[in-house]
Parts: sequence; C-alpha cells; structure tokens
Amino acid sequence: MANPFSEIVDLLALVPEGNEEAVDAVRQHDAQLTKPPGSLGKLEELVEWLARWQGKAKPTLDNPMVAIFAGNHGVTDQGVSAFPREVTAQMVANFTAGGAAISQICALHELNLRVFELALELPTGDITQTAAMDDKMCAATIAYGMEAVAGKPDCLAIGEMGIGNTTVAAAIYAALYGGTGADWVGRGTGVDNAGLARKADAVDRALALHRDALGDPLAILAKLGGREIAAMLGAMVAARHQKTPVIVDGFVATSAAAIAHAVNPHAIDHCIFAHVSAESAHAKALAAMGVTPLLDLGMRLGEGSGAALGMVLAKTALHLHRNMATFASAGVSGKD
Amino acid sequence: MANPFSEIVDLLALVPEGNEEAVDAVRQHDAQLTKPPGSLGKLEELVEWLARWQGKAKPTLDNPMVAIFAGNHGVTDQGVSAFPREVTAQMVANFTAGGAAISQICALHELNLRVFELALELPTGDITQTAAMDDKMCAATIAYGMEAVAGKPDCLAIGEMGIGNTTVAAAIYAALYGGTGADWVGRGTGVDNAGLARKADAVDRALALHRDALGDPLAILAKLGGREIAAMLGAMVAARHQKTPVIVDGFVATSAAAIAHAVNPHAIDHCIFAHVSAESAHAKALAAMGVTPLLDLGMRLGEGSGAALGMVLAKTALHLHRNMATFASAGVSGKD
Repeated sequence: MANPFSEIVDLLALVPEGNEEAVDAVRQHDAQLTKPPGSLGKLEELVEWLARWQGKAKPTLDNPMVAIFAGNHGVTDQGVSAFPREVTAQMVANFTAGGAAISQICALHELNLRVFELALELPTGDITQTAAMDDKMCAATIAYGMEAVAGKPDCLAIGEMGIGNTTVAAAIYAALYGGTGADWVGRGTGVDNAGLARKADAVDRALALHRDALGDPLAILAKLGGREIAAMLGAMVAARHQKTPVIVDGFVATSAAAIAHAVNPHAIDHCIFAHVSAESAHAKALAAMGVTPLLDLGMRLGEGSGAALGMVLAKTALHLHRNMATFASAGVSGKD
Repeated sequence: MANPFSEIVDLLALVPEGNEEAVDAVRQHDAQLTKPPGSLGKLEELVEWLARWQGKAKPTLDNPMVAIFAGNHGVTDQGVSAFPREVTAQMVANFTAGGAAISQICALHELNLRVFELALELPTGDITQTAAMDDKMCAATIAYGMEAVAGKPDCLAIGEMGIGNTTVAAAIYAALYGGTGADWVGRGTGVDNAGLARKADAVDRALALHRDALGDPLAILAKLGGREIAAMLGAMVAARHQKTPVIVDGFVATSAAAIAHAVNPHAIDHCIFAHVSAESAHAKALAAMGVTPLLDLGMRLGEGSGAALGMVLAKTALHLHRNMATFASAGVSGKD
C-alpha cells in the first residue's frame, strides 16, 4: 500500500527558494526613503520578507487572509480544558458572526477572515487511548488544509480553535524535542493546578502508549495531533509552493510548523512567528526551531489573534515602503 | 527673582491619581467577552490604562493624536550627527507634506498628527561650550509644550525630530543616572565609529563644563537639553492634568520622561513606553525608570513612529473591548 504521506513529504522536501532579486529591489527602494537606513528595523525586514517569498520586487498585501482551522479532540475526555468541548463550534459561529477577537481585529484592519471547520462533530481519538487519526485521515486533512490558499491570498496568517488542543500541541513538542508532559503543558484557556497536572499526565500517557510509533514527524502528527494541526501544516506547505508568505500564530499553530521543520528545516523559511504566547512552553518551542517571534504581548488566545497583529505590522510596513517620500522627492539632504 | 521652574515643579509634584473605579468597570466588561480571562494580555492592560488615566469607565480613542516636537541643537557643531542640521526643518516639511514614515503611519491608521516647530532657526547653545537654554527660555518652552493638549486629544503619542538630539538625550541620561558619554551614546541616525567617539566626547565635555550646575532635574534639562525635550516634558505633564494618557516614543522622547520621573517618579504613571529603541542605551534608560516597553522592533527613527505603533495597538485593544460579543450574547459556554 502506498504511504499516504508520500505527497506531503515530497512537498516539504522540495520547497522553492526565496527570490533574492526581489529583496534587492526592495532594499534599493528603501535606501531612497526619507529616513536613516535601517531605522525602521523589523518593519523593513517585513517588507523584504514579503518580497522574498512572494517573488515580487513590489510586494503586495491586496488580499491578506487570516485562516482559522477548528477541530475537536478526544483527549478532552481526560479533563484537560477549562472549557467544554462544545465551545469549539460555538466559537466558530462567533468568528463568523463577528463577535470574536479575531473577527474584530480583521474588521478594524481590513483583513479577510476564513474559517475552516474540520468535522467538529467527530473529535479525533483520545491520544491517551488510541491514535488521534489514522495516517490516511491525517494525510487527507493535510490536503484539505492546502485549500486555504485557493483564494490566492498574498499573505496568509494561520491560527486555530480547538478545545483541548494545547494538550495535543504539548504532546507533539514532547515527541519532537524530548522531555515530559510537565515540560510542555501550560494553563491553556485557564486550567487550575489540578487541570494542569491532568494535562501533563495525559501527555505522558499518550507518549508512553504511542512510544514505538513516533519514528517520524508525520507519524507524530497522526498519533498525537489534531485535525486543525494537520490542516495548518497543509496550509503552510501549500502557501510555500504558491509563493505566499505565512504568519504563524501561537503555541498550537507553531506545532504545525514544528512538524514541517522536523521534516525539513527549510520548509518553514517563508514563515514568520507573530508572537511568543503566554503559554509557557511556546518560547521553548520557538527556540527549538531557531526562530524569533515578532511580538511579546502576553497573549494566549489563539484563533489567529497574534498572527493578525503581525499582519497589521506587515501592512503598516508595506504602506510605508510604498508611500513614503524619497530624499529626492522631498528635498531632504542625505547623510554627510 | 522668582524661580522660572516653580510652576512646572508644582505640576510635577501634584499630579492627579488614576481612576480605579473606571478600571474596575473595564475589567467587569472584559470578563464577559468571548475569550478566556486574561488571554489578550497586554491588549487588556492597554484598555485598563486608557480607563485609568482618562477616568472613563468606557474609554475612548476618538481623537488619538501624535505630537512631534522639533528642535535644533548647537552641539551639531561638534560633528555628532550623520546628517546636516538643515534636515530638521526639511523633515518637518516632510511630516506635513505626508512623505515621512510618521505621516504614513498616521494616514493608514487614522491618527491625527501635529507638528510643533521650536524656533528651528535658533539652535540651542552648544552644550560643550555653554548652556543649551537659560532657565527662563527652558520654562517658556515647557509651557509651550503644554499646548499639545489644547486640541483635547483623548490619547497623546509623543515624539520628536532634531538632528543632534540623541547626543543631548545621552547627556541628560548621564547627568541623571551617572556614567560617561560612552555609556549613553549610540549611533543615532547612523554615525560611524569616529562620529560615535565624537558624541561620547561631546557628552563628557558637556558634563564637565556644567558639573556644578546640574543639581536638579530641571537644571539638567536647561543646561544639557533641547527645546523639543523641554516641550515634550510640558506636553507629558499637561496631559496628566488633563486626563490624557501618554504614549512615549523612543530614546530622545524618553529623556523628557526621565526628567519628569527624576522630579517625581509618579509623574509618569500615565505614560506607557511604546518600544525599546535600537539606540543602544534606551533599554538602560527604561530600566532606570523601572518601566517596560510594549514593543521591541529594532526601530530607531524617532518622529513618534514607535509611539504611533503603540497607539495602533491601543486602538485595536479598545476596538476589541467595545465590539466583541459577550458569552451571553454569542451563546458561548463559560468555564466549566
């Protein structure tokens, strides 16, 4: 029987390079703008990043999209969340109705929001008892996630919603980077100390149960992951092949990038990490991948909220790059 | 003869307290919004901060203003800047014409921009040779800066423009916090190593020349400061008395807050510090005041650019606070 992951492995292995000519063009224009060279710091880097991964000397943000992937998790049976499982579907309705934080960030800053619901009525397997998904379901969900770029966004912010998914993400990090449940779990939506202990225990039991089946990153995703994490992986990879730079949200979204990174570290070169979450192990996961987050605002909401703020910065940066005067046009003297 | 600083000293000493009832009202509303409590991190704190210092249970950002104060500096005769002095006036024209970074941040995010020109044709005294200003001129400039709140902004972002003013700010920090010029100067708009050495030397010579006249913070401001720094101090203090929260920009703007803080540490309780500048000693100055910056984006442009990004975050935070659904209105289940 064919390996269901062969397509995604190929897509992760054979990623296109960035376009350095486009970056050079951006730098040449930037050098003419009325400001000391380099003085906009990471805002300048954001424009270069857009150019590099869009392959455009004049990068665009005409169709910035925030994609939220929502899934449910059997592991919530282990008492790992402060909120009941039905909140996933309720929040999906809230995203669409405009009542959620991400809805309002997108409304204020004119970002397109798309929500991808992943069979919420069919939670994944409880990872302390069984595999989250079989390999075929996992591969199919990755493929579904690739649909996120069908609307041809020129930049994609990726986030998620799923009661129980900080436990699942912690299990993925533990499997990829070592350590026990206690090293990787945090309070998620706000569990108390007993809930935190249940999360750590659930991760440890899941790791023990699946120990012999975690030989490669995609097996880790199938055994310990969740539908929204698989779909985010698909979205990230599809974006790379479609020249769409990606902004990754927080603790859970980063676990999808970690799977990609474990297959091929260069597979996430087109991704920036919007913020470091208050979820305690996020900083450790980012460090394990050698990436630096853009913001540190103590946020831990998920639903793409941090990634959307990253998009606001990118939008601002590009607006400056396109609209600032040059030394020549403004009659401003250059450096002595 | 009356002490020209008696009014400003009184205003700094007798600052109104924040309104904790307004903060409580914000927290009560926040607890009903469809998100885990605390999950928006510093965005939640920004709304509380607006409420506390506006004294409004329902804070507003209907008239967010970015004020830029521009001054020229005699110390540029010492070769301390990479750009010629005339750039200050050229950039003021650029702010108004819409070509500068701050103009475009304000345009994109609908922030009001006001530029206060401070006798650009009359640079302050070269601090290595004489006082920057006499006390009377300094006090008058502080008073002029108070005009920044005449337009009744509900939040004020404060920034500056002035070729040579990172040298002047470094001198202020050295006088307030100790150390030599080398401890406090940085590359500003981009001086080379020789320029950096000239900056450090200029600060050391200014400190030596004025050594016996730096007994209090306002004397430090007059002897070593600049018109834009004096005016920013006035704006900060007037804002406090008019219940206007203040967002402070980078290395130079912070030196005005440092003068206020040295007179009365509580005089800057209504100020947040938007970002830590790439100008090397800014982090040290913030630490000396015991304040934590909101952003770290490697920026070092001045002209209120970091403060304006802080305003964008505050605007976003308030928009969420006002427009998100509640658990009840959205039919989302609460914590177990």
